[in-house]
Amino acid sequence: MAPPPRPHPLTQLSLEESQKARDVVLQLHSKSLVSFRTISLEEPPKAELQKFLEVEHNGALNASTPYPKRVSRVSYDVIGSNNIPQYQESLVDVEEGVEVSREIVSTTHHASLTSGEFEELVKAVWASPLFKEAIAELHIPTGFEVVVEPWPYGGSIEDDNPRFFQGLCFAQDTRNKNPDSNFYAYPLPIIPVMDAATQKILRVDKLATGGIDDGFEVGTHDRNILAHCKPAEYVPELLEQGTRKDMKPINVVQPEGASFTVGDESLVEWQKWRFRVGFNHREGATIHDVWYDGRSVLYRLSISEMTVPYGDARSPFYRKQAFDFGDGGAGNYANNLELGCDCLGVIKYFNGTKTESNGTVTTSPNVICLHEQDAGIGWKHTNWRTGRAVVTRHRELVVQFIITLANYEYIFAYKFDLAGGITVETRATGIVSVVSIDAGKNKSEYGNVVSPGVLAQNHQHIFCVRIDPAIDGPSNSVMVEESHAVADKTRNPYGNFYEVVQKQVEKPSWLDAAPHNNLVVKMVNPGKKNKISGKNVGYKFTPAATQMLLAQDESIQAQRARFAQHHVWVTKYRDGELYAGGRYTLQSRKEVDGVEDAVARGEALGKDGEDVVVWNCFGLTHNPRVEDWPVMPVEIHELKIKPADFFEANPSIDVPCSRNLSSKLVGEEKEAEGCCKGGEGKL
Amino acid sequence: MAPPPRPHPLTQLSLEESQKARDVVLQLHSKSLVSFRTISLEEPPKAELQKFLEVEHNGALNASTPYPKRVSRVSYDVIGSNNIPQYQESLVDVEEGVEVSREIVSTTHHASLTSGEFEELVKAVWASPLFKEAIAELHIPTGFEVVVEPWPYGGSIEDDNPRFFQGLCFAQDTRNKNPDSNFYAYPLPIIPVMDAATQKILRVDKLATGGIDDGFEVGTHDRNILAHCKPAEYVPELLEQGTRKDMKPINVVQPEGASFTVGDESLVEWQKWRFRVGFNHREGATIHDVWYDGRSVLYRLSISEMTVPYGDARSPFYRKQAFDFGDGGAGNYANNLELGCDCLGVIKYFNGTKTESNGTVTTSPNVICLHEQDAGIGWKHTNWRTGRAVVTRHRELVVQFIITLANYEYIFAYKFDLAGGITVETRATGIVSVVSIDAGKNKSEYGNVVSPGVLAQNHQHIFCVRIDPAIDGPSNSVMVEESHAVADKTRNPYGNFYEVVQKQVEKPSWLDAAPHNNLVVKMVNPGKKNKISGKNVGYKFTPAATQMLLAQDESIQAQRARFAQHHVWVTKYRDGELYAGGRYTLQSRKEVDGVEDAVARGEALGKDGEDVVVWNCFGLTHNPRVEDWPVMPVEIHELKIKPADFFEANPSIDVPCSRNLSSKLVGEEKEAEGCCKGGEGKL
Repeated sequence: MAPPPRPHPLTQLSLEESQKARDVVLQLHSKSLVSFRTISLEEPPKAELQKFLEVEHNGALNASTPYPKRVSRVSYDVIGSNNIPQYQESLVDVEEGVEVSREIVSTTHHASLTSGEFEELVKAVWASPLFKEAIAELHIPTGFEVVVEPWPYGGSIEDDNPRFFQGLCFAQDTRNKNPDSNFYAYPLPIIPVMDAATQKILRVDKLATGGIDDGFEVGTHDRNILAHCKPAEYVPELLEQGTRKDMKPINVVQPEGASFTVGDESLVEWQKWRFRVGFNHREGATIHDVWYDGRSVLYRLSISEMTVPYGDARSPFYRKQAFDFGDGGAGNYANNLELGCDCLGVIKYFNGTKTESNGTVTTSPNVICLHEQDAGIGWKHTNWRTGRAVVTRHRELVVQFIITLANYEYIFAYKFDLAGGITVETRATGIVSVVSIDAGKNKSEYGNVVSPGVLAQNHQHIFCVRIDPAIDGPSNSVMVEESHAVADKTRNPYGNFYEVVQKQVEKPSWLDAAPHNNLVVKMVNPGKKNKISGKNVGYKFTPAATQMLLAQDESIQAQRARFAQHHVWVTKYRDGELYAGGRYTLQSRKEVDGVEDAVARGEALGKDGEDVVVWNCFGLTHNPRVEDWPVMPVEIHELKIKPADFFEANPSIDVPCSRNLSSKLVGEEKEAEGCCKGGEGKL
Repeated sequence: MAPPPRPHPLTQLSLEESQKARDVVLQLHSKSLVSFRTISLEEPPKAELQKFLEVEHNGALNASTPYPKRVSRVSYDVIGSNNIPQYQESLVDVEEGVEVSREIVSTTHHASLTSGEFEELVKAVWASPLFKEAIAELHIPTGFEVVVEPWPYGGSIEDDNPRFFQGLCFAQDTRNKNPDSNFYAYPLPIIPVMDAATQKILRVDKLATGGIDDGFEVGTHDRNILAHCKPAEYVPELLEQGTRKDMKPINVVQPEGASFTVGDESLVEWQKWRFRVGFNHREGATIHDVWYDGRSVLYRLSISEMTVPYGDARSPFYRKQAFDFGDGGAGNYANNLELGCDCLGVIKYFNGTKTESNGTVTTSPNVICLHEQDAGIGWKHTNWRTGRAVVTRHRELVVQFIITLANYEYIFAYKFDLAGGITVETRATGIVSVVSIDAGKNKSEYGNVVSPGVLAQNHQHIFCVRIDPAIDGPSNSVMVEESHAVADKTRNPYGNFYEVVQKQVEKPSWLDAAPHNNLVVKMVNPGKKNKISGKNVGYKFTPAATQMLLAQDESIQAQRARFAQHHVWVTKYRDGELYAGGRYTLQSRKEVDGVEDAVARGEALGKDGEDVVVWNCFGLTHNPRVEDWPVMPVEIHELKIKPADFFEANPSIDVPCSRNLSSKLVGEEKEAEGCCKGGEGKL
């Protein structure tokens, strides 16, 4: 009998493998208490994985193919006799059952947070006399209960930097007996702070609640802080007006099923695309080894980081700055998706895992969904001489995951399309973060009043997408291309000429969007030319000229998020360098081992191509509208990565142009008939 | 019996009304030959229409309501004894059957082109010995036929400016006996020029066909200009590889029909939106009198103009600059749409009209389609305390039209959404305009070689959307809002604060996008404040920081298209001032009565609001990729106009959050079951 097939090196750890990793760590620390944070796949070093992938793509995998070791990164706290947890990370070979390496992290960094720590904060708050005192001063009316929402402490400017957590406080109207009544409508102006080591509330910060002219003052508010607030419900059964009744269903029906296939755990094939889907606690869904029609395009694609700094000048809001990937983990906070709610049509779900503090790893179901969607017209041309129209539909294959971090949600999607393009879509939704403002005040420099007594603070979201290109192979160069007006009359006698100029990025660097110059970033293979145009084959994107981090350069917010200050970073590949803002962001005071440090290494990027990584950062300066309340409509951003002389023609030119037979005229029963002239098959 | 109801003042002219307009003009010119160009509705003066709409919205229309006169603008040539057509426009009262006014245009401007003139060009070419001679020199091989594609002459820099037309020339491979074989794959380096007055070919311009180092030279090409060209087919039956067979259908099914209603000819109501759809030969579909939930939002929304200047420095390409709306007319060149091809689901089509040269007006069917589409998640929040997710779908109502101008197509859509937003979407597709390049050359400063012997010239598309706001009434102001970093340590002690600054536009002006400042344009009603935030109610958009016109300021291209030089123009309303590049663009030599002239009037815009018009221009610098050949995948741009403190909460908060029951798991037959907790109804 043949041995059971080995998992692909990019396949997530099985529950058995995770268990083995746990056991190894427990054995190594048999004299201490171990509290686990995460157990997940450590992707193989690139050099090893590349060798394996080459064999795989050559169709030459066999019993003697060397597989990269299956390794788990295990993050955990060792709680010694002094009761102070020491944060460690071990790499464990889960085939051999041995530890490969170990790092004690907590001497220099704070580990990312766990939900256990968040629970500790809530417990500590309720046990705190300080907190009880602070609450008593607020005269919360009967029928309301206090809700404490745990948050990371953020970037402290104090001398030392012990591990703290803070709680944003709200009151929930319990009179409607609905646990989903929106407590954000009743913000309370206090923030309890817990020392993680002692799990005790150290202090309760009091917040200013003034308007335009009494900005920094604290405690000027009314005796009953909630008297002027109003309900702001979003669960349907609490809506005063009910839900609207006149929306008729739009069904996406795929009578023949999906056009994609999912092979072993992670392999997706669809319309000449072939890639693998990964999932980890930090980044959520990741995309690997992307090929189109037998040609390599990307080695890896991921959402690397996002920071959300708040612009309220009052203390302690300079500490209000989330790093949603580094602090909490997009994978840890991924939603378990539901059929018919989060996407339509025929869906394939992927599971992830969750690690409990005792090291038990369980399946987290449906953390990623995969489905196709129609995206309007793909291309069309009508021959003016014959009147014949040829029109094709655009279609996208969507890999989607959604995260909830306290009040906010983000919807992330990698969309592969018929024209050889890849779009990274982000949608921001959820509930804006709010603080209390006194009765009668609706002017503030720090935000917008979205409900009586509720100030939604101005903030930014700065995302970073990491693109590890492999355009027809690993050796790639990054070119910056711009279109320039030309004043020289010899070259431009009639004034209509403009020139397209290209410059190679010769060393790791950042660059900013320049839409006035039509700046385009091209990732090319300098060793391979397009047969038609003679240009190097490539993929391109136009960095969106969004506003970047507004915090002053020397501020703690800016020091922690150097990546958020430029639109594009080009670095030389290094194993494990996946995180734009650095591996450890929780309570960081500066960005360590993020993109700025990677650029500072200053390696040369040779003319013949290197293993480069391109990072695209983009932001949303979010000065809330009243319309963003109580749950905000999605704010959408798209990063479009498109082939640029990679192919020798439009790769979607062979998409059938036939009619969709299920469309109907308003008020008529009859469906569409026949085919577009010359069409074959049906769509 | 009650008299038949009168058409709404915004309803297109009926065929009878058009016929009446024609008859009046024919009677007035009974001694001359009249050749008609267009007969269409002249929208009533705003003051009159506003009065009418007020009565309409008050539900007070009755037999004694004064209706604005039904007026037709009739454009025609009067061909007198000298045989030189004189271009005239008459306004005809089609109720009374009398001419209201007349203008003789051709003394100062060229009228827009007609398809008749295009046909004349083709005829003239074939009758021309000059052309035959030029063709003979090219040694077109057997099996190929010459195709002449008529184009406007563009902006001439010669002393006088008679009405000319030019033809771009290609060869069509007839050996496959398919009239839709792609002739653009065989460009010919000659351009015949016709004098419209004599309908004779005056000359045949010879084109340079060199590469990077022999740019301006003409006639260096091979004896057989087509020998190195290759087929580039896009009709499915000519594709060498055939069409792909593995795309399974995605059907959009609306078992209960559409959620919108279409009332009299032009009135659309959907999900609290209410607006009218217009259509005219110049702008295509227009949107009028937009209300949401009983409140006025916009008076009129339209695509005003688009110019496509080419960046090839060689003569005569400075004249290659289309004004697709002004020269040809988006309505005149609108596609007749087909069920199941151009949009999916349950569709309502609107018809337009076509005017023949004898003045007969006929119906042009299905020039606009109206349908709903799902647009992913609209908003979502998961309560972290209870785990309950509430998620709603976003949905859009799409008013779409598509135009073909020679090689290119544009797909325009006005999309109304559940969150009170309006998006103007443009998709550029079709075939890029190409010229001949010599064998063996694939480097050029002027474009990209997309097929052997085929140089796709670099060009820009600059669009202008005209927004005539009526935010809770006609008196509106335009505010420019930016987010600025703050260096002042008193105001910003921790460095995280940024300020939001607003400035009113006090007089007609242009302004440019400033994404680094997060520049947002707000159209507000200075007389009405949002009850929650205290801010003036408004709608906003972020002008996209796209590259604007690159042509040198003194060049003919730039002189003709002043509108294309800035992202935003703010003007004071004036009847008939609808066209960013001026009413007459064909062979224009400078922009006359466009937005620049409107701004130059320098009216004051009072603090209390005026009848302002806001124009948003955006561009696509299109340096073609090989992937854009032979038909380019859509390049999409979206202008999103969103409420900004217009509402007192997210207007889509009452969208039902229930499950779509038709979604399925891959490989399973079972559809989704049950409802999201608390959901009502089904979607």
